[in-house]
Amino acid sequence: MKVVRTVDEVRAELAPRRSAGAIGLVPTMGALHDGHRSLLRAARQAVDAVVVSLFVNPLQFGPHEDFSAYPRGESADLATCEQERADVVFAPNAAEMAMESGVTTVTVAGLSEIVEGAARPSHFQGVCTVVAKLLNIVRPDTLFLGQKDAQQNAVIARLVADLSYGVSITVCPTVREPDGLALSSRNAYLSRSQRADAAALHRALLTGRERIEDGATVEEAERAMQEVLAAQRGVEPDYARAVDPHSFKAPQDEGPVLLVVAARVGEARLIDNLTAHPGRG
Amino acid sequence: MKVVRTVDEVRAELAPRRSAGAIGLVPTMGALHDGHRSLLRAARQAVDAVVVSLFVNPLQFGPHEDFSAYPRGESADLATCEQERADVVFAPNAAEMAMESGVTTVTVAGLSEIVEGAARPSHFQGVCTVVAKLLNIVRPDTLFLGQKDAQQNAVIARLVADLSYGVSITVCPTVREPDGLALSSRNAYLSRSQRADAAALHRALLTGRERIEDGATVEEAERAMQEVLAAQRGVEPDYARAVDPHSFKAPQDEGPVLLVVAARVGEARLIDNLTAHPGRG
Repeated sequence: MKVVRTVDEVRAELAPRRSAGAIGLVPTMGALHDGHRSLLRAARQAVDAVVVSLFVNPLQFGPHEDFSAYPRGESADLATCEQERADVVFAPNAAEMAMESGVTTVTVAGLSEIVEGAARPSHFQGVCTVVAKLLNIVRPDTLFLGQKDAQQNAVIARLVADLSYGVSITVCPTVREPDGLALSSRNAYLSRSQRADAAALHRALLTGRERIEDGATVEEAERAMQEVLAAQRGVEPDYARAVDPHSFKAPQDEGPVLLVVAARVGEARLIDNLTAHPGRG
Repeated sequence: MKVVRTVDEVRAELAPRRSAGAIGLVPTMGALHDGHRSLLRAARQAVDAVVVSLFVNPLQFGPHEDFSAYPRGESADLATCEQERADVVFAPNAAEMAMESGVTTVTVAGLSEIVEGAARPSHFQGVCTVVAKLLNIVRPDTLFLGQKDAQQNAVIARLVADLSYGVSITVCPTVREPDGLALSSRNAYLSRSQRADAAALHRALLTGRERIEDGATVEEAERAMQEVLAAQRGVEPDYARAVDPHSFKAPQDEGPVLLVVAARVGEARLIDNLTAHPGRG
């Protein structure tokens, strides 16, 4: 496994691998957990060269968000990448990525301004800008993303299509704790009791799915999810919505509904989602 | 010479050429003239595979600008490309480029909002978005641009650097008529007499350069250029500025000054520029 720090090193390292086969990129902000491992394994199965990026992107954090607190632990991350047989780890410093200024930005209008985007106003612009840059640096054939960040995935899919990046996207299922809590680097902020409280997000999603599959309306399902979140001591609900999985607007008359929740638990702002099929119950 | 219409065809056509050598891209909106020819020749000298794009990008025209009137003549353009020994011409239709929506956009803040950007508010965002997309489709090693669009070149240079496109940029000198008028596809809008009037833009630049090189201040040079434009019947001046060639803000104390002018002549809005070296006269 090769660890590289600069854009030039990535290009030099990937040039020979590019002609030899397919390149996969697993973009991460480090603090790797079993959710990331599942992406690394999916990439290892699917492509010839697995590239992992480790970069805490300042542009995707709001001014009062947790950029400086975000967990960082490169040596553990490199060990994880090694165990999962990554080929190249791109771990640039902030100067190499030069993402502070926000002069040049990539924006997906609409989708970036609703639901999670309404809660975090410049978040998806920061995501799009760094993803565009990583795609330009690595030029992968396939991008591996986790289902937990469903709206981010929808934004990136739109970015890739609209700007003709010609990269295919593989979305891997959310990895969960036994009680349903979705794995997230931000779970590291939780105390033991907050960790237990946070399972309410998944319980809310299960309740919403049950309602939708029993024929309830979107509004009824949203209310039911809200109630589960609000009933849990230590959980401060942000939103609980039932949306179209691609547009994140009101669901279509036919097809699956994506249930999405966000809540604050202690210092952590957590998100999760689950797909429901109306009238299937 | 291969003429291709779809993104997939570009990729298929370029894949074998990419491993065989360097790829150059000459991005154009068609209506090719001798300025474009000079770009094609520079590309032919410098790279192994010369790609020309012909696409009138709707996103870079404002709502009251000349998108529908913009000159189009594909058969003449293809003949020019053939004569200049281009390898691949990418001439997509609007649906293939899907640039109408403006959902996904690429923005270079600051530089895009001043001088020409102040006169044409969303113009450079439209340019950046289509250039990002063309770079993703063609993935050239070198991009060939004309000096006439100096601010556009500065915007694209910033885009390429900030998003790590890893493409080098070759800027070719402006090609002029014997009376100094810069070649432009929009010169096609000019009547014979307007064509003569339009030479005032270049005369204004020559006057500005003389003043700067004689030690005049930026303000004096700008006033002198304004006077030349205003004195010419049939010319409606927009701006006449002396700026830093990279930032397009006030010039540095040392180094060259870029003189930039814009004016309306009949139906045509024309721009031009010239470099001056303070105190050289």
